[in-house]
Amino acid sequence: MSGVVRLLEEIAEVGRSRESGGYRRFAWTAEDATLRAWFRGEAEALGLEVVEDRVGNQWAWWGDPDAARAAGDPGVVTGSHLDSVPDGGGYDGPLGVASSLAAVARLRADGFTPARPLAVANFVDEEGARFGIACAGSRVLTGALPADRALSLRDGDGLTMAEALRAAGRSTSSYGRDDEALARIGTFVELHVEQGRWLADTEHPVAVGSSIWPHGRWRFDFEGEANHAGTTRLADRHDPMLQLAALITAAREEAAAHGCVATVGKVRVLPNGVNAIPSAVTGWLDARGADEAAVLRIVPGLEARLGTTAVEESYTADTAFDPDLARSLAALLDGVPVIGTGAGHDAGVLSSHGVRSAMLFVRNPTGVSHSPLEHAEDADCEAGVDALVTVLRDLAG
Amino acid sequence: MSGVVRLLEEIAEVGRSRESGGYRRFAWTAEDATLRAWFRGEAEALGLEVVEDRVGNQWAWWGDPDAARAAGDPGVVTGSHLDSVPDGGGYDGPLGVASSLAAVARLRADGFTPARPLAVANFVDEEGARFGIACAGSRVLTGALPADRALSLRDGDGLTMAEALRAAGRSTSSYGRDDEALARIGTFVELHVEQGRWLADTEHPVAVGSSIWPHGRWRFDFEGEANHAGTTRLADRHDPMLQLAALITAAREEAAAHGCVATVGKVRVLPNGVNAIPSAVTGWLDARGADEAAVLRIVPGLEARLGTTAVEESYTADTAFDPDLARSLAALLDGVPVIGTGAGHDAGVLSSHGVRSAMLFVRNPTGVSHSPLEHAEDADCEAGVDALVTVLRDLAG
Repeated sequence: MSGVVRLLEEIAEVGRSRESGGYRRFAWTAEDATLRAWFRGEAEALGLEVVEDRVGNQWAWWGDPDAARAAGDPGVVTGSHLDSVPDGGGYDGPLGVASSLAAVARLRADGFTPARPLAVANFVDEEGARFGIACAGSRVLTGALPADRALSLRDGDGLTMAEALRAAGRSTSSYGRDDEALARIGTFVELHVEQGRWLADTEHPVAVGSSIWPHGRWRFDFEGEANHAGTTRLADRHDPMLQLAALITAAREEAAAHGCVATVGKVRVLPNGVNAIPSAVTGWLDARGADEAAVLRIVPGLEARLGTTAVEESYTADTAFDPDLARSLAALLDGVPVIGTGAGHDAGVLSSHGVRSAMLFVRNPTGVSHSPLEHAEDADCEAGVDALVTVLRDLAG
Repeated sequence: MSGVVRLLEEIAEVGRSRESGGYRRFAWTAEDATLRAWFRGEAEALGLEVVEDRVGNQWAWWGDPDAARAAGDPGVVTGSHLDSVPDGGGYDGPLGVASSLAAVARLRADGFTPARPLAVANFVDEEGARFGIACAGSRVLTGALPADRALSLRDGDGLTMAEALRAAGRSTSSYGRDDEALARIGTFVELHVEQGRWLADTEHPVAVGSSIWPHGRWRFDFEGEANHAGTTRLADRHDPMLQLAALITAAREEAAAHGCVATVGKVRVLPNGVNAIPSAVTGWLDARGADEAAVLRIVPGLEARLGTTAVEESYTADTAFDPDLARSLAALLDGVPVIGTGAGHDAGVLSSHGVRSAMLFVRNPTGVSHSPLEHAEDADCEAGVDALVTVLRDLAG
């Protein structure tokens, strides 16, 4: 078994649900700690020096990033994340981290000497599965998400992120934007499994990313009046479940009308009893599309139809990666395709902040992601490492 | 503070959620054990002998039920349950148990000597909040719910009732129908807070029950295909949330069309992630009405509209209480009203089994139930005890 496949095997059982076969790897949990320790161990075995920024993102450096930064030639960083959505697949995130470690191992074995420092990064809390905001690690790092807002986010059990950090044995006093860590990054390259079927019908196992669609998450809170399901007349009911149904149906209609995608994938019902009219129901909307104006018409359309106001939990405008970098990487990789995506990534957050960033996508034969059925062929994962090695040689050579 | 109000005060903090103010008292949990121990202590303090049947229902006897049964004149039983729906009120169940204990205390203080044995009963798992089947304690007692089916029911954490019983320190080997316990009951009277506003607009604090509407619970399982919410085209989606929305909307329409009530109060979404199209969604339907034929048209109507098959989790036909007993109790109580209800009760299960049964309802000023806002005035609770004392004097005298 080669590098990247073996690395993924090593963590294959961490946070895996026996029931679904999917992963439940959420920020600042025991599973997360296991993955962070694994990352540190693998990186140190490669002779890299692992440091953490003020947010808790891990950076495994080959070379001195501060000397390079002082010399005006900051480092090259590659990496991704190890956390997952609920019942997610084994590739979304870990493929990028494992490929980065495998690429560094290959460069070491080849006797490559980087002209500028090189790092593998593991970003925390990319999926936002626990606290609701995606890319929280990179967003706080860049200041896009203020530290005090992040620390006060609550998980499904009512625990704040600050409490979760302390429970994980971390201090929150220095938590926040970290310009020093950012200044060490000259270029960032994130390798990721494709989440769609663009490459599936081509002969290419790898593509370069062009941009990330504008995308956001909104929360719809519907208040009702708890009451007995058997004894309360229909006319006397204030049943918020009916509004949830209207939201689900209308979201699909608005998305179709505007050429976007919209999803209600998460709901919360209180008290969630068979014989109780709910007191409150919340539905979360995820909406995205290639055209920002169209995406931004969806929520006002829903608010008007439902007579309610949504709470924006996060929104990211259209993010184009550095077009010159994308072009040069595609040329370097013998003319692989350059494609856009509907999924958000830490590379998008860094790019929005002005960090020169690029992405590599590895073919996904079914396009399925955020599911236990997510898959990439071993040979395609190897091709991803080959591509990453070529890119890192070029950028750090 | 008088008897019944003081008794309710004693357990006011057991299983109470600080968040909602409602009760979470589920079968075979630590809260349930606390309430069972409290019941035993209060009953023993009144000089009653507490025994349990094969299901775990508690019976606190005044007099020898087996001698009376052998003599062909079995006892009089009153009581209700102490468990709750999620975030339920403090009266649904406990008012009946506390009023029964208070009534026995009054009879003791008055020097009353029962001509036949008298018992206070605490039925387990009336709400079915944990394992999904209401009145599980009385249904297994009478054989309406086979023991093996009950023991294999699972709670939200995947634990079976058999496992829950063992975790509560109980054996399951003798669990099941208990004809001996049933044969001790000559007449059963359950006092309960009204769940509706029939009495609210009258001068009567108490009514006698005539019947329980036919009612049932059905489960609708919708299978989908988990996928990424951002990268999966609308046309490629198999999103079961849309079918849940259709169920919620159609259930209300079918109920209105047939003059019944129908509620989707509980849903389960997998994996329930903001950025994941669900792999599976389940919605539970509760449907009831005065007209059985109308109630039985709702589910087939929904199945036809949704192109799916529902699983019946429980169904109880129209249950008329003994009409002669209801008439005589109403006369005994100076002509209080005789009313029907949409809520199921252990008295209904016993009545269906052929046990001579009756109910007393205590006024609810708002009609709200299965909610932290459920309420009954202290004076009305006292009037309920007065009525129960009169009834017990008559039945056991």
